[in-house]
Amino acid sequence: MIVVKVGGSEGIDYDAFCADIAQLVKAGKQLIVVHGGSSQTNAVAEALGHPPQFVTSPSGYTSRLTDRKTLEIFEMVYCGKMNKMIVEKLQALGVNAVGLSGIDGGLWRGKRKSAIRVVENGRKRIIRNNFTGKVEAVNTDLLTMLLEGGYVPVLTPPAISYENEAINVDGDRAAGATAIALKANTLVILSNVPGVLKNFPDEESLITDVPSSQIDHVSEHYAEGRMRIKLLGSKEAIEGGVGRVILGDARQADCVSTALAGKGTTIS
Amino acid sequence: MIVVKVGGSEGIDYDAFCADIAQLVKAGKQLIVVHGGSSQTNAVAEALGHPPQFVTSPSGYTSRLTDRKTLEIFEMVYCGKMNKMIVEKLQALGVNAVGLSGIDGGLWRGKRKSAIRVVENGRKRIIRNNFTGKVEAVNTDLLTMLLEGGYVPVLTPPAISYENEAINVDGDRAAGATAIALKANTLVILSNVPGVLKNFPDEESLITDVPSSQIDHVSEHYAEGRMRIKLLGSKEAIEGGVGRVILGDARQADCVSTALAGKGTTIS
Repeated sequence: MIVVKVGGSEGIDYDAFCADIAQLVKAGKQLIVVHGGSSQTNAVAEALGHPPQFVTSPSGYTSRLTDRKTLEIFEMVYCGKMNKMIVEKLQALGVNAVGLSGIDGGLWRGKRKSAIRVVENGRKRIIRNNFTGKVEAVNTDLLTMLLEGGYVPVLTPPAISYENEAINVDGDRAAGATAIALKANTLVILSNVPGVLKNFPDEESLITDVPSSQIDHVSEHYAEGRMRIKLLGSKEAIEGGVGRVILGDARQADCVSTALAGKGTTIS
Repeated sequence: MIVVKVGGSEGIDYDAFCADIAQLVKAGKQLIVVHGGSSQTNAVAEALGHPPQFVTSPSGYTSRLTDRKTLEIFEMVYCGKMNKMIVEKLQALGVNAVGLSGIDGGLWRGKRKSAIRVVENGRKRIIRNNFTGKVEAVNTDLLTMLLEGGYVPVLTPPAISYENEAINVDGDRAAGATAIALKANTLVILSNVPGVLKNFPDEESLITDVPSSQIDHVSEHYAEGRMRIKLLGSKEAIEGGVGRVILGDARQADCVSTALAGKGTTIS
């Protein structure tokens, strides 16, 4: 079992991604796809007059500020535009994909963090009415049923809280939680960079291997922005029993196979 | 088995609708929900600077002109905003809903009509690059698997063509095709009117019963706008073996139960 997360940043080639997924499915690999949609969400939110806002936690992680209106835009783009685009492309390639959000069937369940601590201009403050959280339980019955039926699940945030509210969750960490719950041996996380870079944005400075004991060190000294959350998701996945995590580049042909062959940053 | 279609026009009370669905599910009814989203799609399309356009066929049916950009907006609203809103509400009511579009798992398959004949100012012309069609086959295996797993499927257009393109299909007729394929005994179609009105929009002029032999007559003489397509979907459902179709009012509490009790226009 392989869980493949593909990001939602600019520069990602979804045609190439889906073509590679189709090749792997035809070769008999059992796969689950998880995707993002941040760049498109920003564009649609701007166009709808509700521009995106991002906040930074005291520990340095950046996330989307998600009020209820943002959550609805988020759902439109992640569950509507991105999810159905990927499912349509996979169907055209002969893959019987089924797109689900974390709300559907209570697939991704977790605690809502309605109040979050953020740092703004060096000062800490609390923001309320926030619809974010973290995936803590995965409905593996639903995923197993679909896999056994010959379907390839294509999963997207949001998740659902214990109080049954839709919550924005980080896709990389949700993919990690899914890999753990399904006892996947490999988690591939693809984005628009080649992996962890020692001197960001110098793509020649790729760190090819990170032993799990070194994840925190690498995150603190080398990772920038979104890469820190990818490393956090990788750490959670490894600690949860996933054999290896590969952070690879989604801007190229055969991006999944290439990552599975070890190109990128391998964490084990 | 009951298939319940709820429209997407203004005035529909989705909280009441979902509460009634939850009551029926708890009472042991096996249900499939199909929904629309036209009013919200119009609003989002306007806001995104790609205003909706409607065309009328030579036989007098009105439909949304669906170029690829419209299709993407359509997916955002139907599959993202509306579908996840309904699934979230049902989850909060203890119903384990799973939202799917007709693309997912090839659920609703049909022929794309890329060129359509329309009437404009009394003149006929052909419009091309249109992404619409009609559901001709339903993946009952996927629906049966979900139902047997204890899930309530919540279905939405678009469907998928034989060439694997997403296509805008009429939700009422798609609900009818689903009812036929699942050998449902009842199809309920709820909208923002009480049923077929003899003197539209006089709600006191409700036609309570239409024998199947009279559908064409009623459609021709009394039905306005969208109601003509609902009657067409009803006719297809009855001809396909569905026991009865009820056209009811979604603007009230207990809207599904009330329709099942015979309030509205019953076609059999």
